[in-house]
Amino acid sequence: MPQASFPSARTRDTFVSPIVESRRWLQGLTLPADLPLLNLSQAAPADPPPEGLRRAIAEAALTDDSSHLYGAVLGRDELRAALADKMNRHYAGDLSAAEVAITSGCNQAFAATIAALCGEGDQVILPTPWYFNHKMWLDMQGVDTCPLPVGAAMLPCPDAAAKLITDRTRAIVLVTPNNPCGVEYPDGLVRRFYDLARAHGLALIVDETYRDFDSRNGSPHTLFQDPNWSETLIHLYSFSKAYRLTGHRLGAIAAHPGQLLEMEKFLDTVTICPAQLGQTGALWGLENLDDWLAGERQELLNRRAAIETGFAPLAAQGWQLLGCGAYFAYVAHPFAASSDELARRLVKEAGILMLPGSMFTPDGDPTGARQFRIAFANVDTHGIRTLFERLTNWTA
Amino acid sequence: MPQASFPSARTRDTFVSPIVESRRWLQGLTLPADLPLLNLSQAAPADPPPEGLRRAIAEAALTDDSSHLYGAVLGRDELRAALADKMNRHYAGDLSAAEVAITSGCNQAFAATIAALCGEGDQVILPTPWYFNHKMWLDMQGVDTCPLPVGAAMLPCPDAAAKLITDRTRAIVLVTPNNPCGVEYPDGLVRRFYDLARAHGLALIVDETYRDFDSRNGSPHTLFQDPNWSETLIHLYSFSKAYRLTGHRLGAIAAHPGQLLEMEKFLDTVTICPAQLGQTGALWGLENLDDWLAGERQELLNRRAAIETGFAPLAAQGWQLLGCGAYFAYVAHPFAASSDELARRLVKEAGILMLPGSMFTPDGDPTGARQFRIAFANVDTHGIRTLFERLTNWTA
Repeated sequence: MPQASFPSARTRDTFVSPIVESRRWLQGLTLPADLPLLNLSQAAPADPPPEGLRRAIAEAALTDDSSHLYGAVLGRDELRAALADKMNRHYAGDLSAAEVAITSGCNQAFAATIAALCGEGDQVILPTPWYFNHKMWLDMQGVDTCPLPVGAAMLPCPDAAAKLITDRTRAIVLVTPNNPCGVEYPDGLVRRFYDLARAHGLALIVDETYRDFDSRNGSPHTLFQDPNWSETLIHLYSFSKAYRLTGHRLGAIAAHPGQLLEMEKFLDTVTICPAQLGQTGALWGLENLDDWLAGERQELLNRRAAIETGFAPLAAQGWQLLGCGAYFAYVAHPFAASSDELARRLVKEAGILMLPGSMFTPDGDPTGARQFRIAFANVDTHGIRTLFERLTNWTA
Repeated sequence: MPQASFPSARTRDTFVSPIVESRRWLQGLTLPADLPLLNLSQAAPADPPPEGLRRAIAEAALTDDSSHLYGAVLGRDELRAALADKMNRHYAGDLSAAEVAITSGCNQAFAATIAALCGEGDQVILPTPWYFNHKMWLDMQGVDTCPLPVGAAMLPCPDAAAKLITDRTRAIVLVTPNNPCGVEYPDGLVRRFYDLARAHGLALIVDETYRDFDSRNGSPHTLFQDPNWSETLIHLYSFSKAYRLTGHRLGAIAAHPGQLLEMEKFLDTVTICPAQLGQTGALWGLENLDDWLAGERQELLNRRAAIETGFAPLAAQGWQLLGCGAYFAYVAHPFAASSDELARRLVKEAGILMLPGSMFTPDGDPTGARQFRIAFANVDTHGIRTLFERLTNWTA
């Protein structure tokens, strides 16, 4: 394999995807029948979308020829318009369809955004713990990541971010509700980052993949109410979680139309267009699933409550619940060993797969070694009880 | 839009996609009723896939939960195995499923390949006329393109390529049957490039998106018969053309498993997994559409013959047929004006949309200004006759 030895290859600048690596921990694993695996590694709905959405996709596959043929690079006009409309209701904003584009998943939305903002040696400020695919993409694009460690409430500090800004800084990235920490960023905090970015001519990238599961009612932030929002804000979204469309790869970007034209170069070159049937499903979801989605949100809020109230026995053993919300709980463990080592042992000894904090923090960062992310969207409240029982009975 | 002014942004290093740009030429266009548009711009089947494949997708949408959920980054095991099997029959090879990966389209296969081979300032040798998305991706990755102009038969010369190799060269890219030129590269020529790449420790990337429409019977090249092929060769493929799945975004890579692990980092970060329903369709196609595909190939060969035999009146006016095969004819025009200018006029004056050679050649290259690509897959033989009548009656 001589080519793989090229030391300059982009992919060699980054690490193996934590999801891929954790799946490898399961290879050849056989657990006792009374210890079925609790897979808390990936932020993925375990169930398929509602029947009506499935029927809409099947119907389009059979009767709508355009379902199988190339579409517009930035997505179908009617889906862009429907998403803009939904966002205007959600954020009390005034977006047009031309300010919204559809992507092949929210990871690609981030990738296209960075390609349109950054080049070799540019810098991006990323709160830590980070979402690992963000870090991987920055690595593979030759962009320097400036880590911004969160404070005690798992919230990043705008004043600390300000100190990281240089003449090569191009963007600040926020994820709210946060992956991996679960915390919901207050509007005031988001606004302070927005003002900071605007003052320095930077982009503020806000990844709101989990916005449909925010515990707060009403608009989670007021940025879209600023008529000049698109001079600073680039908003990212995913249809995957809201409508259980992870297998269709559907995300979105809200940005200045001029920015979307730049991103169009990237999107055309990497995938040409988003998958058409997925777009059919997303549009059907926007038009029909508001009530259903409200129920999904309530179910996630119930699981969150189950985590918060059920955590006491673990807390008594020295565990800490650092953040909890949307799809995630972020916890600190009481053991001397590193989370990376413990995570591998937990699979075999307790039938629990969850990602260690070291996968969300820079190499050698001691905080990550003390932490775990629990992606609880694919276990119900019963599964959460089982998880806590197993953790309480397990000792490193 | 302050961020768009960042001069270092990757997307600013390249041009607007020719497909996107040519679509803009059509905006606001109204043609006379007796002059309906002949769209010869994009290599796209005009019709949807066969009914059985559509039913297979619809059935999966309704009954197979995994159709809607995340899958493996490198694609479904059964699809990888089926493609390896098909390739073994086609190329008389011995590939395993582990040497094949599924991507979100063949453009993404190229993108992942370059990410796994190249970094900033590395070089890739690309015959010209090139496939524009290849050039765009190299631009956006900070990779220097070394253009290798083809000779009179529209074939690149290995000796000329050898002279371009430096210590930063990482790969040579071939497309056969060629986009945009339509020519099928002889096995002997492909083999010479393979030997050249191997001798210098480079990768030979062979994009065979149009292999199902090759006029030759049997294996189009013998590279997969070399037991060490994966030390040098990276093969790219697309399901889009074979089974009319352009709207599903399905491509593939054959490479060393170690290379695929590197590419997995890129694929995970950019799209997580290929769209599941598209994979269902591709698998159904591999298992059921051999005979149908043979008929499709024959239809394309008929169109090719219609172009070759119908070209005489144009040749009499000074046009030249430079190459013809698979989905494309590549022609030279007899006029003084540039192809870029003529292409825009042809839309309005003759209802013909075809891409100018300048979109497939380096800036300022005088050959591209004399040439057009005719993507004839989405017009039948009647449409080809109409095209030639309109071109014969039109004068710049």
